[in-house]
Amino acid sequence: MLHDQIILLALQEDIGHGDVTTESIVDKNLEAEGIIQAQEELVVCGLEVAGRVFHLLDPDIQFHAEVADGEKVKAEKVLALVTGSAGKLLTAERVALNFLQRLSGIATQTFHYVELIRGTSAQVIDTRKTTPGLRDLEKYAVRCGGGRNHRFGLSDGILIKDNHLQIAGGIKQAVQSARRFVSHLLKVEVEIESLDQIDECLAVGVDCILLDNMNVKQLHEAVKLIDHRCLTEASGRIRLENIRKIAETGVDLISVGALTHTVQSVDIHMEISG
Amino acid sequence: MLHDQIILLALQEDIGHGDVTTESIVDKNLEAEGIIQAQEELVVCGLEVAGRVFHLLDPDIQFHAEVADGEKVKAEKVLALVTGSAGKLLTAERVALNFLQRLSGIATQTFHYVELIRGTSAQVIDTRKTTPGLRDLEKYAVRCGGGRNHRFGLSDGILIKDNHLQIAGGIKQAVQSARRFVSHLLKVEVEIESLDQIDECLAVGVDCILLDNMNVKQLHEAVKLIDHRCLTEASGRIRLENIRKIAETGVDLISVGALTHTVQSVDIHMEISG
Amino acid sequence: MLHDQIILLALQEDIGHGDVTTESIVDKNLEAEGIIQAQEELVVCGLEVAGRVFHLLDPDIQFHAEVADGEKVKAEKVLALVTGSAGKLLTAERVALNFLQRLSGIATQTFHYVELIRGTSAQVIDTRKTTPGLRDLEKYAVRCGGGRNHRFGLSDGILIKDNHLQIAGGIKQAVQSARRFVSHLLKVEVEIESLDQIDECLAVGVDCILLDNMNVKQLHEAVKLIDHRCLTEASGRIRLENIRKIAETGVDLISVGALTHTVQSVDIHMEISG
Amino acid sequence: MLHDQIILLALQEDIGHGDVTTESIVDKNLEAEGIIQAQEELVVCGLEVAGRVFHLLDPDIQFHAEVADGEKVKAEKVLALVTGSAGKLLTAERVALNFLQRLSGIATQTFHYVELIRGTSAQVIDTRKTTPGLRDLEKYAVRCGGGRNHRFGLSDGILIKDNHLQIAGGIKQAVQSARRFVSHLLKVEVEIESLDQIDECLAVGVDCILLDNMNVKQLHEAVKLIDHRCLTEASGRIRLENIRKIAETGVDLISVGALTHTVQSVDIHMEISG
Amino acid sequence: MLHDQIILLALQEDIGHGDVTTESIVDKNLEAEGIIQAQEELVVCGLEVAGRVFHLLDPDIQFHAEVADGEKVKAEKVLALVTGSAGKLLTAERVALNFLQRLSGIATQTFHYVELIRGTSAQVIDTRKTTPGLRDLEKYAVRCGGGRNHRFGLSDGILIKDNHLQIAGGIKQAVQSARRFVSHLLKVEVEIESLDQIDECLAVGVDCILLDNMNVKQLHEAVKLIDHRCLTEASGRIRLENIRKIAETGVDLISVGALTHTVQSVDIHMEISG
Amino acid sequence: MLHDQIILLALQEDIGHGDVTTESIVDKNLEAEGIIQAQEELVVCGLEVAGRVFHLLDPDIQFHAEVADGEKVKAEKVLALVTGSAGKLLTAERVALNFLQRLSGIATQTFHYVELIRGTSAQVIDTRKTTPGLRDLEKYAVRCGGGRNHRFGLSDGILIKDNHLQIAGGIKQAVQSARRFVSHLLKVEVEIESLDQIDECLAVGVDCILLDNMNVKQLHEAVKLIDHRCLTEASGRIRLENIRKIAETGVDLISVGALTHTVQSVDIHMEISG
Repeated sequence: MLHDQIILLALQEDIGHGDVTTESIVDKNLEAEGIIQAQEELVVCGLEVAGRVFHLLDPDIQFHAEVADGEKVKAEKVLALVTGSAGKLLTAERVALNFLQRLSGIATQTFHYVELIRGTSAQVIDTRKTTPGLRDLEKYAVRCGGGRNHRFGLSDGILIKDNHLQIAGGIKQAVQSARRFVSHLLKVEVEIESLDQIDECLAVGVDCILLDNMNVKQLHEAVKLIDHRCLTEASGRIRLENIRKIAETGVDLISVGALTHTVQSVDIHMEISG
Repeated sequence: MLHDQIILLALQEDIGHGDVTTESIVDKNLEAEGIIQAQEELVVCGLEVAGRVFHLLDPDIQFHAEVADGEKVKAEKVLALVTGSAGKLLTAERVALNFLQRLSGIATQTFHYVELIRGTSAQVIDTRKTTPGLRDLEKYAVRCGGGRNHRFGLSDGILIKDNHLQIAGGIKQAVQSARRFVSHLLKVEVEIESLDQIDECLAVGVDCILLDNMNVKQLHEAVKLIDHRCLTEASGRIRLENIRKIAETGVDLISVGALTHTVQSVDIHMEISG
Repeated sequence: MLHDQIILLALQEDIGHGDVTTESIVDKNLEAEGIIQAQEELVVCGLEVAGRVFHLLDPDIQFHAEVADGEKVKAEKVLALVTGSAGKLLTAERVALNFLQRLSGIATQTFHYVELIRGTSAQVIDTRKTTPGLRDLEKYAVRCGGGRNHRFGLSDGILIKDNHLQIAGGIKQAVQSARRFVSHLLKVEVEIESLDQIDECLAVGVDCILLDNMNVKQLHEAVKLIDHRCLTEASGRIRLENIRKIAETGVDLISVGALTHTVQSVDIHMEISG
Repeated sequence: MLHDQIILLALQEDIGHGDVTTESIVDKNLEAEGIIQAQEELVVCGLEVAGRVFHLLDPDIQFHAEVADGEKVKAEKVLALVTGSAGKLLTAERVALNFLQRLSGIATQTFHYVELIRGTSAQVIDTRKTTPGLRDLEKYAVRCGGGRNHRFGLSDGILIKDNHLQIAGGIKQAVQSARRFVSHLLKVEVEIESLDQIDECLAVGVDCILLDNMNVKQLHEAVKLIDHRCLTEASGRIRLENIRKIAETGVDLISVGALTHTVQSVDIHMEISG
Repeated sequence: MLHDQIILLALQEDIGHGDVTTESIVDKNLEAEGIIQAQEELVVCGLEVAGRVFHLLDPDIQFHAEVADGEKVKAEKVLALVTGSAGKLLTAERVALNFLQRLSGIATQTFHYVELIRGTSAQVIDTRKTTPGLRDLEKYAVRCGGGRNHRFGLSDGILIKDNHLQIAGGIKQAVQSARRFVSHLLKVEVEIESLDQIDECLAVGVDCILLDNMNVKQLHEAVKLIDHRCLTEASGRIRLENIRKIAETGVDLISVGALTHTVQSVDIHMEISG
Repeated sequence: MLHDQIILLALQEDIGHGDVTTESIVDKNLEAEGIIQAQEELVVCGLEVAGRVFHLLDPDIQFHAEVADGEKVKAEKVLALVTGSAGKLLTAERVALNFLQRLSGIATQTFHYVELIRGTSAQVIDTRKTTPGLRDLEKYAVRCGGGRNHRFGLSDGILIKDNHLQIAGGIKQAVQSARRFVSHLLKVEVEIESLDQIDECLAVGVDCILLDNMNVKQLHEAVKLIDHRCLTEASGRIRLENIRKIAETGVDLISVGALTHTVQSVDIHMEISG
């Protein structure tokens, strides 16, 4: 139920006034089976959503997952079997795969980032640079890939950025305003661009410092200065090429916008047999 | 109005119960100006949608585009100015940029594909491998980048695929069924995987033949066999590296799933000043 | 699922705050059977939708169709049996019948038009003059009656009308603009009001010429001039009285706005027994 | 705002993925004026809704009504002027006219029924046999034509029908159950099929008796028997041909399903000039 | 289906991006049983809605009511058993209880008002002072508590208030305008503030007189003056303390805004066992 | 925009098929002014929402607030002036007041709780026991009354309750599972029912301990044991009568379900003058 709105939107935009090709060619009473299969090595994500696509189009279709979201599978692995009206399977196929390929793409890419920093104390986290309408699903894909989520939106965490600091007139004022206003269950993170701001952050007891666009040397120094008195997050143009070095600076969290803003769908097919 | 549903979905998933950071720090009556600026060379797309994001959150915000969708701009080019409540600008910023960066990313990537085949008779077209909920916007981005759209969904074109052919029992039967059923304004395209199927397609007068997953040599031969008696479309794992060679086979249309299923958001910032 | 939005709208506008009569009189646990029966000869359409009305109000109601959409039945024919809560059957009855009577009315009327031109080469097609919110259902009813659909809306066909021609500055310019812009799977139809425009249409290779508001003599001449070089469509105030003569002119398609803009619901009752 | 849901539904089903013809031919910056004009004598209804269609598609379009809903106008009367983007006018035209033609058709037809019984004490009222999704608009059209509304749905009036009587075990039991349950502001009407039931109705003090499918003679007798002790409503296959005779029996109300279930859209055009 | 909109809204506002506590702690495959139990004496209302909350979150959850809405139960009475995924039960619990506690609170309070006037001829009725979005559910709770409903909204009854009278220029004019305009199944009630207005009301035959903010003496006199020629309703700051005295004046109806605008949720718990 | 969904729901449930009284009596062109006035001392909340109610019904209505949300005003204070169509003001009045009276009721009640603990170190906070559909508005009202918000829903805070502890097999396991899973910006609160659990909470470093249903003596002891090593929250049947004593135990936060589950709407009128 929680993702029905975006699934219905996707079905409606694809089906429009009807699948004219299938409706004109395929007998309404014909039954078929579809085999959903990985075409490359990938981390699966989106099987429940894919099943829901078929279900919302036709509740009589049976969808049976052969693996679980989060599993790493090899090429040719069967991910799910789906049986029911041949016509409805053909009509729903593209939308189901669009979800599955994109979410598995995010999970797979996240997995690669996570693998690269194995052994360090850092964790890969996502950002709010997600596809409009797909926030929760994409953040779920990040978790499936072994990553961890940053806040989901503007109401489940306090993240004081450059603009907030300017307007508030300083770190102390901004943090105190936020602390007075929001729920006691939300932590306060402050984005800084210079190491000079660390002392003020620590003085006012922030829970996490976001070290934005710093190079490896600066990050090293920041981690040393902060010395575990609060969490540290590195961000800014982090890619597969540089994440290991950043993790080795000792930061706790590395947020990677590319997990969701630069997505390569993985290849997953559905074969239908009568 | 046409894209309000996805814009509202995006705003709701980001704002949730409120932008607790901004609401606790920024004075309600503070006004500010935001400058939206390209951080790299790109083809712009999504300015109207970005403006609508701000408008739906706060109708008093003024959004003024400095360039038009479809323009190619250099890094540092100002794309739009937006003025109004400082707090509301901060709250809407991420959602507006998420649309703008993604759509401009698609337009820019499409532009690169289109550039590569300049001088040939082929056109770059998109597919239905789009992000759920963003079909129309992403296909608009493809047009902004110089590409052309394949059908928007299942009801604005007849595309007979492998599964349809099997079920129908042949090309002739499938095409005739479709022709009887659907509007006279829709053309018929048939997907083939072997050159042997061309004759049957031409015999029944299909409007376009989709040559799926063929190599350059096969495409050459197919184009020669078909000899302009109908349109030809090449598809299957087409990337920047191989599109020129495919275009030079003489096919009319080259459909590129990667235009929308493998997206790299371009870098666009918004600077806010009091 | 595809028609749930309009069905829910219809249920909500009828039920409002509740069926006060039924709720105050009928015991919640009373079960009953409803027999849905034609009161006149008609072509059935809407059984699936009618069943969905009952299902959306109360998923425990069983709806069993005795005939199929598109069948021609005589008066007193039982169309469907529906069993479940007596109160819910009474509450849903009017909405279910409103769909069924209207859609069967359209199918039946279409059937009469189609019968009249049997033996000619012409086909009866519908228009966009449909009831707001019921486009797809009404066009489905036209198909059930033996008619064929014109385009479903503004995105699944190019139909260049008088106003477009004026603005474009001529047929050639208009057609070329459209061809460059839209999907290769859409055909181009041009509406003309004078036989003088035929040559220009044929020169630019339009797929269909819409001969608007022409009399039988003009239509004859147009068909002769065009000589099967493209499709021909006649339109404009076509009724049961004149359709045969128009079909005999040799046009391929006759679009009849009255199929959906002038509707006489057929008489269908539901009898409930305890 | 009250009708936005059905208007948006109508716009979406017509526009789909875009008005490909207009978008490819008409310059975005071209302004135009549309003149909406009656093509036959009619009673106008739906101008506000038509204006809202244009407004929801493009708030910059100006819509100016030249007459008011409920006015009777002659052929060629200009009903409204609408100015703005030429492309948007063309895109919205069909949906706006679909509302206007249908609602004016209902108002005009109602007017004819009302005219026929002028001078009698009877009033023409509508039924719940309306188009799904258009209940309130169609009942408004009936008022514009001079008719009066029966209840809008199942919650604004108690109408005890045959089935309710059977289940309740008699008129007295049914009326008393309803009276206990519902708001004191709702009257009780009972449908009877035989004159024998009148006494029981009067004994229990019903507010209105619905005389269903009775002939003129029976109606005369019923009116005499009831003798103004409660309201009387005649219903059942009432058409233009027989309504005068029915009115002359002295019934207070004549409900005509055909007002809304058998609709002939009137002819209204929109001319656009650059 | 009729209350799904508000139930989904309630689930969405509570669950947001997910129940992070439960999802991180509770195994997906763990099954459990929840026992919903009254913690104080109360009149139950909302069991069907509570069941629907669980169903909409997870259709596999089984909800079994042990009592019926409208029953008066003692503390510790088990109201319902609910079995299924432990995690889903925990996630849905608060929303289900929020409905159940509030609706049972209204039913219970209504019951107390009704008890106090037992033996008089008066009935307790509600008002339109309900919680936004919960109108129908709260009026259902009033019925469960033994009260009766006033009109549900602005379209199922004519209630002419002070402002209407002023604008109309008198009771007679207002009543006549309303009678001409609205359905014959709606009664007319007029709100008066002085006994002087009674004669005019009776002269024009209103169905009910609303005696607003009158003291017991005035009500006595009004009842005597009206002498059963129409219904009488007392309203204005009626509480448990004064309702008996008001009922003893002989008024027919006593409308109590506090039934729904001053609500004390009753205490109902859900215990979950593995 | 953020509250439009619940406002539209409230307008639709009240207006239904139309305000038949007002539409039949009040001239469409009549303008009027409404004065919204407090009838008792109160803390105002909901002016923006009330204004939006009028705006959504009729954008031409002007709403001007005379005070700000959060202000404490005396009886007879004018809260807002609203001018426009007399009929539309009458139609919107009840819905606007329903929001305003309920939200101001919550703000006023919160104010009384807050006043009672002035001078202590404790803060009054709300719970998730809010009205379905009104969560964000009611929590805003709590802030207007001087209270602070607990989490808004299940995704903006980790609150480990009795059931979670049982299922997890202990405090340590539960806290560690949650910490691994959720965003680093969310704090962890654990509900305990016995002082014996405090040590385990502190050992695993929870951010806040919820002391549920403890008496004053237990709370004193808990506060002493915890000794500011984490936040403390008291909850369970807290009312105006006992909150001071609880605050004096030294707890940091006192959550009061009654703020939102036991609401007394305050008295606010709207006077309309022509």
